[in-house]
Amino acid sequence: MNKHTQTLQQAFNEAPYPVGGHGKRNAGVLLEAFRNVAAETDSDTYGSGAIIEQFQAEMADFLGKPSAVFFPSGTMAQQIALRIWSDRSGKTKVAYHPLCHMEIHEQNGLRELHRLEPVLLADMTSLIALADVQGLPDDVACLLLELPQREIGGQLPAFEELEAIAAHCRGRGIKLHLDGARLFEVLAYYGRSAAEICALFDSVYVSFYKGIGGIAGAILAGDADFAAESKVWKRRHGGDLISLYPYIIPARHYFKERLPKMEQYYRDAVELAAFYNGCGGAVSTRPAVPVSNMFHVHLQAPKETAERAMIRIAEQTGVGLAHHVNAVSDDACYYEVSLGDRYPGVPKKKLEEAFRLLEQLLNKQA
Amino acid sequence: MNKHTQTLQQAFNEAPYPVGGHGKRNAGVLLEAFRNVAAETDSDTYGSGAIIEQFQAEMADFLGKPSAVFFPSGTMAQQIALRIWSDRSGKTKVAYHPLCHMEIHEQNGLRELHRLEPVLLADMTSLIALADVQGLPDDVACLLLELPQREIGGQLPAFEELEAIAAHCRGRGIKLHLDGARLFEVLAYYGRSAAEICALFDSVYVSFYKGIGGIAGAILAGDADFAAESKVWKRRHGGDLISLYPYIIPARHYFKERLPKMEQYYRDAVELAAFYNGCGGAVSTRPAVPVSNMFHVHLQAPKETAERAMIRIAEQTGVGLAHHVNAVSDDACYYEVSLGDRYPGVPKKKLEEAFRLLEQLLNKQA
Repeated sequence: MNKHTQTLQQAFNEAPYPVGGHGKRNAGVLLEAFRNVAAETDSDTYGSGAIIEQFQAEMADFLGKPSAVFFPSGTMAQQIALRIWSDRSGKTKVAYHPLCHMEIHEQNGLRELHRLEPVLLADMTSLIALADVQGLPDDVACLLLELPQREIGGQLPAFEELEAIAAHCRGRGIKLHLDGARLFEVLAYYGRSAAEICALFDSVYVSFYKGIGGIAGAILAGDADFAAESKVWKRRHGGDLISLYPYIIPARHYFKERLPKMEQYYRDAVELAAFYNGCGGAVSTRPAVPVSNMFHVHLQAPKETAERAMIRIAEQTGVGLAHHVNAVSDDACYYEVSLGDRYPGVPKKKLEEAFRLLEQLLNKQA
Repeated sequence: MNKHTQTLQQAFNEAPYPVGGHGKRNAGVLLEAFRNVAAETDSDTYGSGAIIEQFQAEMADFLGKPSAVFFPSGTMAQQIALRIWSDRSGKTKVAYHPLCHMEIHEQNGLRELHRLEPVLLADMTSLIALADVQGLPDDVACLLLELPQREIGGQLPAFEELEAIAAHCRGRGIKLHLDGARLFEVLAYYGRSAAEICALFDSVYVSFYKGIGGIAGAILAGDADFAAESKVWKRRHGGDLISLYPYIIPARHYFKERLPKMEQYYRDAVELAAFYNGCGGAVSTRPAVPVSNMFHVHLQAPKETAERAMIRIAEQTGVGLAHHVNAVSDDACYYEVSLGDRYPGVPKKKLEEAFRLLEQLLNKQA
């Protein structure tokens, strides 16, 4: 095979030192999680049984909420949370960021299935601020905040701003929902427990296949009657499967394994972002100093130039910096970096070599 | 433990010769299906990748449809099928049996999520007949037929009646959807291929955890644009999981293993029903002669009497005839029997003993 005709994805897959993630998404993820599971372990059955009930209780406890319900996906869990708050208030508007998962990744499910009308707060590049929330009309049932805000590089408001937003919502009877797809990843930065953060919210969603690295699945947590209502909607959505244990067992396994490593992933992201920001003008990260295990790398170069640079770096140094680059304009692009178990395996010498090359390749271009 | 205070479920679980099913629903079902799966096998990713695409292609081929889409559940797949036919026709009514899964097991998802209005055909004890369909109003988008009709014991219309219903629907522009949750189980009775039966329908759903005995999951099949549209709705429902392989690999494994056994399960059900019907007046099966691996046992006795009889039979003969009994009235009850891998392991002598005892216990009562 001619190395020079390979795609970025191929080059990344073949690179001995991929920088992001925990490892390949393959059947090994399942086999590892089931290694010590006895064949006699009973399945859960339509939301009942020890496997699902114990994990739900553990997660309710961790999140500091009375009740938690396991869902096959966050898409399902979050639409349902917003629907419940809408039904209870009799209001059909819900507020969130223009780059909210519901707005850009769910084929308009919130409108098509639930007839809810989003009110978009803040612009495409900034976080939702207290002033945005203060400007909300009165007919809004619920505000969704995503911590960290993934599509802008994983940014976070100051905790004091969060508290002020929560107090404002409480005062106006607007329910506050947490999109915590990457909540575990920001606990170290906030220096607070999940329960302390979740106490500001009426309902909370967390995911098990981002930083946790499970197979799929989500938890939706809140009061007991909120949880009970969410189970009715789970059945309606077709998510109340006879057996969810193929996701629950890995979720629990990798939660125990990786929750203690989240702070390290975050420290690693801060270190790696400094490498990028040391390259000079054509390269920068967003945020400049990460607050979680993730950030975005912005390059002042056409997407194709960036891809060629990444392929060259992978071939020459063995370091896989990115597997996919997104165009922003004709001469700007970005990619996402999420650190996990792989980063400590990248030799520092190789990493320095990769960044010297990146600087050369991008400056030659600029 | 005092044997005489145990519940029917406990007695059934402890019985050495359970009559129905393939085996316990436990982690062994997953471990067995993954025994020969290499750790390096790539996950599917949001509906793409070899694992999901190959299985979908195989099932499309088997069902004789251009396209097939894997779903986490039949609840999701069928609501979506009916929504698509409704959207295309601009009509919001859909017709089905009063004991359709959508009507009794889905918390009204079809109405609450999709605003579709069911028209109920036939009564609680009979199949939908051509005359019922001929009486449908013109504003019906789709008719759903369940083959076999599970909640009335797994009954089937004659194939000629099916053909007549299909022709009538085609003539009137009413789409015909197959709830084939147990389609594989009736191929032997009809003496036709799945493709021959599915040819009468515009869309088809089949399940992988009934007779097939997988973990969960469903296939929805139809034309290419129907399938493409169903994927958009799958995303909206929150069913387009990043990884569905934990269900797909077992579905494929057990499909290959058990499809060839379906005819035997059916023959076994005919044999077992004859045992029941030989007990005399207080005991009968519905249908009298099964057409699939399933039937219902009706007892002219209070539910509690029936439960005590089942517990006694399990304790005395080791044969587990039922694990759950449903009351019909104060002095009538029924339970469902679905045969699978376990039945051939029940010694005929023990079975005869069990039925002699059932006859005694029920006649004493009557």
